[in-house]
Parts: sequence; C-alpha cells; structure tokens
Amino acid sequence: MSPTATDRRTTPVHRTTFALGEEVVPYTYGDRCTEELLALLADQLTGVDQVLLVHDAVAGDLARRVAEGLSAQVPVQSLACTAREELKTLSTVLALAEEAVAGGTTRGSVVVALGGGLVGNVAGMVAATLFRGLPLVHLPTTPVAAFDAVLSAKQGVNLAAGKNMVGTFWTPRSVWCDLDWLRGVDERQVLTGTAEMAKNVLAVVPEREDDLLTAVAGLGDERSDALVRLLQIGVDAKAPALRVDPHERREALVFEYGHTAGHAMELASRGALSHGEAVGWGMLVAAQVGRRLGHLDDAAVAAHARVLAPLGVRGEAPPALDRALVQRLLLRDNKRGYLPGSGPDVVPMVLLDGLGSALADDAGRPLVPVPTALVHEALDAVLGAA
Amino acid sequence: MSPTATDRRTTPVHRTTFALGEEVVPYTYGDRCTEELLALLADQLTGVDQVLLVHDAVAGDLARRVAEGLSAQVPVQSLACTAREELKTLSTVLALAEEAVAGGTTRGSVVVALGGGLVGNVAGMVAATLFRGLPLVHLPTTPVAAFDAVLSAKQGVNLAAGKNMVGTFWTPRSVWCDLDWLRGVDERQVLTGTAEMAKNVLAVVPEREDDLLTAVAGLGDERSDALVRLLQIGVDAKAPALRVDPHERREALVFEYGHTAGHAMELASRGALSHGEAVGWGMLVAAQVGRRLGHLDDAAVAAHARVLAPLGVRGEAPPALDRALVQRLLLRDNKRGYLPGSGPDVVPMVLLDGLGSALADDAGRPLVPVPTALVHEALDAVLGAA
Repeated sequence: MSPTATDRRTTPVHRTTFALGEEVVPYTYGDRCTEELLALLADQLTGVDQVLLVHDAVAGDLARRVAEGLSAQVPVQSLACTAREELKTLSTVLALAEEAVAGGTTRGSVVVALGGGLVGNVAGMVAATLFRGLPLVHLPTTPVAAFDAVLSAKQGVNLAAGKNMVGTFWTPRSVWCDLDWLRGVDERQVLTGTAEMAKNVLAVVPEREDDLLTAVAGLGDERSDALVRLLQIGVDAKAPALRVDPHERREALVFEYGHTAGHAMELASRGALSHGEAVGWGMLVAAQVGRRLGHLDDAAVAAHARVLAPLGVRGEAPPALDRALVQRLLLRDNKRGYLPGSGPDVVPMVLLDGLGSALADDAGRPLVPVPTALVHEALDAVLGAA
Repeated sequence: MSPTATDRRTTPVHRTTFALGEEVVPYTYGDRCTEELLALLADQLTGVDQVLLVHDAVAGDLARRVAEGLSAQVPVQSLACTAREELKTLSTVLALAEEAVAGGTTRGSVVVALGGGLVGNVAGMVAATLFRGLPLVHLPTTPVAAFDAVLSAKQGVNLAAGKNMVGTFWTPRSVWCDLDWLRGVDERQVLTGTAEMAKNVLAVVPEREDDLLTAVAGLGDERSDALVRLLQIGVDAKAPALRVDPHERREALVFEYGHTAGHAMELASRGALSHGEAVGWGMLVAAQVGRRLGHLDDAAVAAHARVLAPLGVRGEAPPALDRALVQRLLLRDNKRGYLPGSGPDVVPMVLLDGLGSALADDAGRPLVPVPTALVHEALDAVLGAA
C-alpha cells in the first residue's frame, strides 16, 4: 500500500546508534520524514565536494528526491546500479568507480548508498576502495537492508564460486531511513527482512517475541509502529555482538543461525524459496538438531514454530527439493572454513542451548561441529521423509 | 652480472622489522640464501591449507623454486601476473580471485606475492579482499619493491583516470628477500629503486648520505654490501613515519618528496623518463622551489645534486618535454585532494626546510601550497628556459 499524497505529514525522527568495534554509527529514522532526514544529512556534508549517490536503478524517483534534497548543500552525482546477484561483482565496482571519477568524485567526496542490501554492498565496496576509502552513508530502501544489512561493516561482492567471497570491512558513517521507503517493496523482500528478525529474536533477544509478533501482525497494513518495532529489534539484537566483534568472525557468527541448512535449501530450490523462507526452514532444522543433541527442549522448539508460522514457514514442507543436492550443498557452507580440517562427516552449525543463547566453542565462536548424519535426520524431520 | 653456480654459498640471514601502526612486520633478508629463507617461511605456515603464490610472469623459474621450497609444508597454487600498468586493474584482481578459488584457495590460505611493486600491489589487493582478507607475504624481486614498496600497507590498482585510485590498506604479515633476486633486473628498475633511496636520504635521513654514495658506487658490481645498505636505508628512513602514520596521509606524505613535478614529468615524457629519473628531476625542482622560498640554502641544494648525479640525474636536462603539458599535469597531482578548495594558482608540494626536515602544515602534514608561477620558475631553472 503506497500512501496517498494526503497521507503525508511530518513526523518526528528517531535516533539510535550501534557500534562496530570502537566506531559508533548513528541511525536516524522515522515515517514519512524524507525531507527532514535529507535536511539533517545535508547539514553534515559541509566541506564535502561531491555526493556520489549510488542508487538502485528501480529507485530513480527517490534518487531524484534525494539529489534535490542535498543539492543546495553539495553537488550530487547519481549513478544507477542494477540490483541483480549476477551483477554484484568487482566488474560493477570497477565500472562505478571509473564513472564516479570521470564525473568528479574526489578524495573529498562522500558515497551515499540508496537501495537494498545488494546496492548497499556494491556502493560499500566503491566507498571502501575508491581513493582507499571514502565516507559511506546508507539510505536503506528494503526491510532486510533497513533492519539487518546496514547493521554491519561487511562489504562484499560475488565470485562465480559463491556469494560475498570478495570484500572488505568498511564502517558506514551514518544510516538514514524513512520507513515509508519500505512500503510497496515486494512481499518476498518483506518476508526476508522479517525472517532475519525472527532469527535474531530466537537466537539473541527472545524477550522481544511479543514485540515481533505484534509487528508481524501489523505488517499487512504496513503500519508505522510495525516497521519501527522491527527496526528497533534489528538494532537491539545486533548491536551487542557487533560492538565486540565488528568483523563478525566470533560472537557475531550467531547471526548465521538457520543459515547452514537454509542456504543449502535456498540454493537447491533454484529460486523457489526466498532467502527469508529458506532461513526460516533452516532455523527449524537447527532446532531439530538442537533438540536431538539435548540442547533445546520442546518449548524452545515450539517457540521456533510460533515465531515462524506467521511468516509462512509452517505446515506443509516447502516445494519438493532435491534432497541429495541439499545434502551436498551443506558440505560447501562457508562456515566450514572456521573449523579447518573438518571433513564431510561434520557440518559446522550455529546451535542454541536455549532461546537467546548460542553454544560457543573454545574460541568464543558460536560454532558446533555436528555429525552430518544428524543434520540429514533433522532435515528429514522438517521436510518429511524423502 | 649474474653469479655463477660456484659463487653460490650459504650466507647468514639478517632480520629487521618495521611497524605499520601497531602491527610489526618482520623483514628477513640476505644474499644467496633462498633455501634458508624458504625453510624459515615454511616453518611459519603450519595449519595453512594452501599458499596462493601470485608471481610476476617473468619470474617463472624463481616461482618454481619457491613452490618447491614450500611444498613439503603446504600445497602451493601458482598464478602468474603480467607486470604491466594497463593490467593493474580490478579486472585482474577479479580474474586472479576467481582462479584462486577454483584452484582451492580458502579462508585458511595465505597469499605470497613474488615480484616487483606492481605484482605486490595486485597480489596485495587479492589478499586484502579475498574472503575479506587473507595473510599477505611479500617476496620482492626488484630494488624498488625490496627497498621501498613492500614497506607500506597501501595496496592499489589503477583506474583509467589515474594510478592507484582504487585500493585499500592491508599490512603484510612478513617480507622475505634474497638480494640475489635483485641482480639482473634492468637498469631502469635499479635506478628507480635507488632514486627512491636518494629521496629518503635527502628528506629523512641525511646522515646516511655517505652510506648511500658508497652503496651506489658498489651497485655496478651488484655487491652484497651495496644491496644490504640500500635495504637498510629504506627501512630506517620509512619506519618512523610508518609507525605513526600507517595510512600515509600525514607524516608519511614526506615520501612524496620530488613526486609532484616528478610525476608530471614522467607522464609528459610518455615513457622516456623512468619513474626514478623523473623523481630525481622532481627533487631538483622541489629544491629550487625551497631555495626560492628561503627554506633551503645552497649547501642543501648542492647535496641534492651530489646524491642524484651518480644516478644519472645531472648536467643535461632530460629529453625535451612538452613544458605546457608538464604544467597542466602539475595541477592534476593527487596531493591536491589534501588541500580542498585549492585552485589552479597553487600546487601542494612536499618541501624541505633543511635536509631531513619537511615543512609541516597545521594538520602535521608535510604539504605546502606553493604558487603555481613559482613552480613553473623552478621547473625552468632545472630544465632550462623553454
């Protein structure tokens, strides 16, 4: 539902922060407050010689509004970026960098990323590498970006062999979101963003379950309070781990909960499952593994079902998956690299030993080597016997 | 002069270190000690699942020796890199990364760069970005790499608009050099490496002038002691500034001495001047600017001539340069970005107010805005009136 012109009104902006290591990132947001946000952002661009606005090609109208809103303060160069996984490569980063410099971007410029997680990552790579680093500002336009992806220093692009295999760490200078930008994105993107929040609630902040369920119930109407709640859950769940582990290689690996089986199912489905659905099903698999190992009781498993059901992850198993392919893909999970020498008999997974509490290894990482056969058993329990 | 087989003997290895901020980098070197160096390096590769050896395509024989020397400890994947400026791009980084991963490089691998500064930079970009960062080990094979380029965290590749415009900071884990690798590189590369040392002596460690002149006199015979002296001057001159300024944006900008006019002359010469010759002439221009501004006395100017003459930067002006082109290129120098808003009337330069002492601005940067007309005058004084 897009708001009509008469719906538009000025609402107050909210401010929060999150820390990536020692760097504190302000996050300013509100509903239907684009002009206020842009005025506040423009105030921070004194002395900047150009804004390089890298925007999702489909967000051209909003990009023009942003450029107009900032252009009284600073010249804006807008470059469109097509949000497709197969274009999320160093070649795209190179093309944007060449175009940026030809259009006047200098060592004194700032990169503003307007779009979802993919555009944020590509623009993030441009910011991290052009002149060996320009300040990066995020304007997220999808739920998964606003609630999850911008809360990270990880930038990355794909190789043929896999997602995000080339990248670097680059902390955004600030994040700004008018929740109104999130209205009208397609349902699968909403589901993906919300599934990541469900994951964070189960794995990190189970006390926010009611908040999450209330927000999900309000999502159908795209109510302000629903969007605000999801954003706040996102920040509250991620901030503590990101502060101590900004490179997301130890404590923050907890955010990979549900992603081991989930990612294998997503790939095996060849597009039939969205990332969010797949992570939802992956959490159900992780819960079954946890229960079989004695770490989770029935109540914790039931909480998984309760939180995921409103997101459509319930009842029927997902569309028929090539079970042998899922099993093969499980062995290519990128968390494997953290446990060198682990063979095909073992799958490194994030497991909970209770809601909000991840099992950690000696290095403080929430990674457990699980017998592959047990993962297959849990997969069968969730998907139904083959 | 290449050593004959009977010249080969085991010599002791030397160890030194330099710091890039808080990270201390060990530098192990010696003459005719490849096997010893590789044995020591191999000892440090326990638990590493693969060495990705990125080597200069022309150093294939040495690459095979390195691979053999390490392969008892760890599998080695060798990838050749052609050392040409027009191939120093993100496209090459992408191609190497794809090939690396297809050949088994993982999050548990180490990148070893074998070659000159260009290969070191390309391999450095691969190391900095593959899996968001793999350990980087340098094996420099040219004088400029061994004495200067490896002493840096700066990695970078070119854009169409200019050199090293895309890059990042990535500290090498260690550096290893058999000075024998430097024998037989072409004369221009020797000159370039030595000109950078002459620059460091004039700008940072003038007390090492005798050392430098002794080394230069020994270079013709490629004597061990000459090469060792140059390496030690390189480390001693760069280490103090790199320790406090690992990103080379403040104190370490002193290493740009001679590079403003030098780089413009190098570009204008379209290959007739090597980088080293151009930097030498650029230092003479900087000295003339300094003398005109009253910062340098005749003795200091004479020291420039004394140090640069044995490197061939003397007497005759360099081959006819398009003076108007040099003047235009001066205004495109990348140090301009440090002094935002400086118009075409001013050229930001590194100037000395005495040997070993750079003029600093309020921000602690050794950058001075010099009237463009004065730079033109100094250029004419050095090159001869047009």
